[in-house]
Amino acid sequence: MTTVDPALLPLAGRHCVVTGGLGFIGSNTVHALAAAGARVVVIDALVPEHGGDERNLDGVTGTVQVVRADIADADAVGPAVRDAAVVFNIAGQVSHHESMVDPLRDLDLNARCHLAFLEVLRRENPTARVVHTSTRQVYGRPRYLPVDEEHPTVPVDVNGIDKLAGEQFHLLYGRVHGLPVVALRLTNVYGPRQSLTKEGLGFLPVFVRRALNGDDISVFGDGSQLRDCLHVDDVVRAMALAATNPDAPGEIFNLGHADALSLLEIARLTTVAAATGATVHTVPWPDDLAAIDIGSFQGDFAKAKRVLGWDPAVSFAAGIAATLEFYRERPWYR
Amino acid sequence: MTTVDPALLPLAGRHCVVTGGLGFIGSNTVHALAAAGARVVVIDALVPEHGGDERNLDGVTGTVQVVRADIADADAVGPAVRDAAVVFNIAGQVSHHESMVDPLRDLDLNARCHLAFLEVLRRENPTARVVHTSTRQVYGRPRYLPVDEEHPTVPVDVNGIDKLAGEQFHLLYGRVHGLPVVALRLTNVYGPRQSLTKEGLGFLPVFVRRALNGDDISVFGDGSQLRDCLHVDDVVRAMALAATNPDAPGEIFNLGHADALSLLEIARLTTVAAATGATVHTVPWPDDLAAIDIGSFQGDFAKAKRVLGWDPAVSFAAGIAATLEFYRERPWYR
Repeated sequence: MTTVDPALLPLAGRHCVVTGGLGFIGSNTVHALAAAGARVVVIDALVPEHGGDERNLDGVTGTVQVVRADIADADAVGPAVRDAAVVFNIAGQVSHHESMVDPLRDLDLNARCHLAFLEVLRRENPTARVVHTSTRQVYGRPRYLPVDEEHPTVPVDVNGIDKLAGEQFHLLYGRVHGLPVVALRLTNVYGPRQSLTKEGLGFLPVFVRRALNGDDISVFGDGSQLRDCLHVDDVVRAMALAATNPDAPGEIFNLGHADALSLLEIARLTTVAAATGATVHTVPWPDDLAAIDIGSFQGDFAKAKRVLGWDPAVSFAAGIAATLEFYRERPWYR
Repeated sequence: MTTVDPALLPLAGRHCVVTGGLGFIGSNTVHALAAAGARVVVIDALVPEHGGDERNLDGVTGTVQVVRADIADADAVGPAVRDAAVVFNIAGQVSHHESMVDPLRDLDLNARCHLAFLEVLRRENPTARVVHTSTRQVYGRPRYLPVDEEHPTVPVDVNGIDKLAGEQFHLLYGRVHGLPVVALRLTNVYGPRQSLTKEGLGFLPVFVRRALNGDDISVFGDGSQLRDCLHVDDVVRAMALAATNPDAPGEIFNLGHADALSLLEIARLTTVAAATGATVHTVPWPDDLAAIDIGSFQGDFAKAKRVLGWDPAVSFAAGIAATLEFYRERPWYR
């Protein structure tokens, strides 16, 4: 990000904490905040299996303070959040599959640690604006499309249950303890600084890595399932708006994209942009993943548009081309 | 319970595990199962602040095996559940207030321990029918009355969030791992064998204790809030039906009562039945409880009636009279 998005400008000079700031969405948030002139403190435990990497802060390392700690570690986290104006609480474990293999660990990382972190915020800095990244996974298998914020929350895997509990803790601490919290439910996000090699971070990094390396892409089932992929820059802008809009606290906002594409289309557009000769084919669903599949998804983001003035600006074709360009120049990612 | 409810008869001779079997609902379940000729194993950690008490099994002690262990303790619990036909999973922490004071502990007891227990069941005995006692607290403040199972789940306190996660884990292990689980969402339950002196077990044991002791009862606010109180015998019958009905697995059932009474009426009926001269008056809401209050509640139990053939048989007037009689003969409860 070379130019500063106007939505970030109100954060210039302000003290912002980014949990999970060495990870994919977190590090992109850090870059955007640093470019806008915010004072940034990162809290990240660098859990080995997660997407965090110190190299994600290449270019801003000197201007950003990094606290290497678990968000549940009150002694380490308390001083880091004490003077924050905004806390972007992005830390978490994102693998649906891993949540089924080691469910207790997912509960710990996505629910327990966040509850402990909220207790720290409540004690140390109850007036800081908190923006929590939740997920469309809390809805489970959609009963209708596009899915608005009133859709029932019936998660289909442990990760969805834990993320929902984590989100509910945030909103509860808003209602009962007065913390100004905002929850953003994200769809599938792609862009720079996502680990392309670690397992369980979703289909997008797999598609990107394989396309870049000239390896064919396998799509499960018939590939007709829809996803409304979001470029991370659009997500970062939504977070900045959620952090500064006076009507946002206490609210849940879906983030989504008007262009819902089939997985097959997403894979094909990725290989076209990569131009490495990689092709796309379909394979049957593995049993363990079929059991937690949600079918098609598209998020209704009318509320975010109305209240926050947010609209995704990046089309998938443009976003994926820019994303591949980023990774092409940084071969260590793949 | 001197006569055996016909709903319990199919459980005669069968191996039933009751978690939280030394507590209020658990011990009443144990008595009913023992009377019906089931082989009963209790798992109970006797957490000091909870409602469990060994004296709750007075009269059936010789015929019931008690494993004193946490349900998350795989080494202790595995052998106890291995041969079970039915697991009544009733253990939990019920205090809404306590969940706000020590939220991490509530998460541990109502979500984490149940997830660990489900992992044990999945390994040791994935075909046992599991009946989980959930709560109307998962709905939060009702948007309409009576509340059916499709009502949004927006809990207003940590206890509700954790109980919802625990319930969702059960249903998930049903869908994904094939465990035949049934979730029952209970309203306020009263009856014999409830600790009357411990804090945080709800308003009913407080009303009963004060009425018995001739102490006046304070009702918060104007006392107009409705509650559909259930006698524990009705709950036990619903659990037996959920344990034996072939269409129950994978389903959520509200339990409720057609007679929704105001808190003021409930208090007055309790004092009338006690006949100790205790009176009822209203006092302003304490701030910490007002913050997590849900207003009126009545559960729509049409689904339980249709699928399980369940209907509450005990009116509050008759039930509270029998309840007071039980405690009058056992002064150590109060």
